[in-house]
Amino acid sequence: MKDVAARAGVGLKTVSRVVNGEPGVTADTERRVREAIGALGFRRNDSARILRKGRTASIGLVLEDLADPFYAPLNRAVEEVARDHGALLFNGSSAENADRERELALALCARRVDGLIVIPAGHDHRYLEPEIAAGVATVFVDRPAGRIDADAVLSDNFGGARDGVAHLVAHGHRRIGFIGDRPTVHTATERLRGYHAALDAAGLPADDSRISLGPTTPERVAAEAQRMLTGPHPVTALFTGNNRVTATAVRVLARHPRPVALVGFDDLELADLLSPAVTVVAQDAARLGRTAAELLFRRLDGAGEQPRQVVLPTRLIARGSGELPPADTP
Amino acid sequence: MKDVAARAGVGLKTVSRVVNGEPGVTADTERRVREAIGALGFRRNDSARILRKGRTASIGLVLEDLADPFYAPLNRAVEEVARDHGALLFNGSSAENADRERELALALCARRVDGLIVIPAGHDHRYLEPEIAAGVATVFVDRPAGRIDADAVLSDNFGGARDGVAHLVAHGHRRIGFIGDRPTVHTATERLRGYHAALDAAGLPADDSRISLGPTTPERVAAEAQRMLTGPHPVTALFTGNNRVTATAVRVLARHPRPVALVGFDDLELADLLSPAVTVVAQDAARLGRTAAELLFRRLDGAGEQPRQVVLPTRLIARGSGELPPADTP
Repeated sequence: MKDVAARAGVGLKTVSRVVNGEPGVTADTERRVREAIGALGFRRNDSARILRKGRTASIGLVLEDLADPFYAPLNRAVEEVARDHGALLFNGSSAENADRERELALALCARRVDGLIVIPAGHDHRYLEPEIAAGVATVFVDRPAGRIDADAVLSDNFGGARDGVAHLVAHGHRRIGFIGDRPTVHTATERLRGYHAALDAAGLPADDSRISLGPTTPERVAAEAQRMLTGPHPVTALFTGNNRVTATAVRVLARHPRPVALVGFDDLELADLLSPAVTVVAQDAARLGRTAAELLFRRLDGAGEQPRQVVLPTRLIARGSGELPPADTP
Repeated sequence: MKDVAARAGVGLKTVSRVVNGEPGVTADTERRVREAIGALGFRRNDSARILRKGRTASIGLVLEDLADPFYAPLNRAVEEVARDHGALLFNGSSAENADRERELALALCARRVDGLIVIPAGHDHRYLEPEIAAGVATVFVDRPAGRIDADAVLSDNFGGARDGVAHLVAHGHRRIGFIGDRPTVHTATERLRGYHAALDAAGLPADDSRISLGPTTPERVAAEAQRMLTGPHPVTALFTGNNRVTATAVRVLARHPRPVALVGFDDLELADLLSPAVTVVAQDAARLGRTAAELLFRRLDGAGEQPRQVVLPTRLIARGSGELPPADTP
């Protein structure tokens, strides 16, 4: 850096500004510094600084799927908190596969990330114990860790689903279908528990033929919705367990001859413009990410309390589809 | 690792399997290995392996906004290609700010990523020249680099917009509004160029009052749409320059007393379920990401051709809103 400064005829601080992309350097000065850098082949290297500090100033985020729009605001919120702490963000998808989650989380630890935020696909996180013992701050988000005691930031999946189904009951529905994600997914079973709680509270019997947990592929969801909408005792309302299920259900109901009420877990872009507009139980995905990242950096700053679980509230947004009365059925 | 293997009474390969999260180990064996790891405090560390290879097996992706659903499939596609090459992915947002883009890209280079994929916010990428000269493979995506010669993977923004506007002309429209992103954004000006080309080809005059480039905030877009829809010569059709502009335009048109035709650049989830369903010019965001990442790894494998620009086609999807005839206007 001294050589660069001497060649460009500027101070060390100016070289540092140019190298770190900071403002406050005139275009002409920057050009001279860059020419000197080009001539001398100088590149900033953070390795030594990082080694000195014993930290890598990087964190890892293991999501279910980087392509899922639900996780996009969570991802950005984690990035912003990391940025405020001068840390860079690695991320990747588990693709809802426990082996891939573990492979990715351990690869990140082997790169010595300071902390990990994990949306778990698997149910046994003992593989992270040596990492946590070695000081890798670890926070689970959206779903809790399995078989280890660790920080977790969750939405109130149980309470949100219970309120959503109670809303349908309050509008006169007695036969309400539930279509959700696979029973191995924590949020799916919590939301199903909320569904049962709302039916119990109303003294309504649960009927297994109106409950379907499984992959959220459009094919499966459409077939299950179709099945519940036909037969001698069709449902008059659907409660859908996440954004992907809701999107498919909306497509099926648009083609259905009778109006069917719908409440979906998770909000969707343009949901307010459909007719009827879609009533949802919304989570605050950005707040999930922000809360998890803030907890992670508090741990890195030495907060030594016991692991804790933070539960964030959901919000019922009534827009029309959840307020339809039961239609006359055959 | 030898100590772990000895203590657990297994071979080195089995320890390696457990540590790397690979399958093929019984639950009991895994437990013994994990206990030995816990007792001995062993953790995998990739630093030495990485130093030996002279590569960090990591790449960086600088997006505009991790929270924007348009970039989510691009992000995942880059991850999948990186994973196929055994590389981990850093990513972050420029927030459409050239200084933040530079700060992030240089911070990634200072961590010695092997390659960078950049959706540029700025227009001068000479700051990357020393990095590229030092061997950091660099590919620009969605928008080209500024003032350096570098690989770029783009959508056919000009041709897509021209075809979308020509589609409105073919349905009888003569007064077509264009609302797009800021004129500093490459894709916005390319799409505007396509708009002009379609009007020119039809012998229609362009009218500045029907063209609006600027921030894509709902407030600005709604005000501009409202302005074009009123007055003595209101537009009978709108061409919207990206997904965020389209979402706001759909909201404005839903409240407007006359039907107004709409073609939007970029597809939207549920666009097919609105009434009218929204006609769009769709880009393949996943293909943009995959193509850029594949080009990056070909460069890392030593492909030494000149930098090149790859242009991917767009696709017009007619769904109803773009096929509305001009309504009678006051």
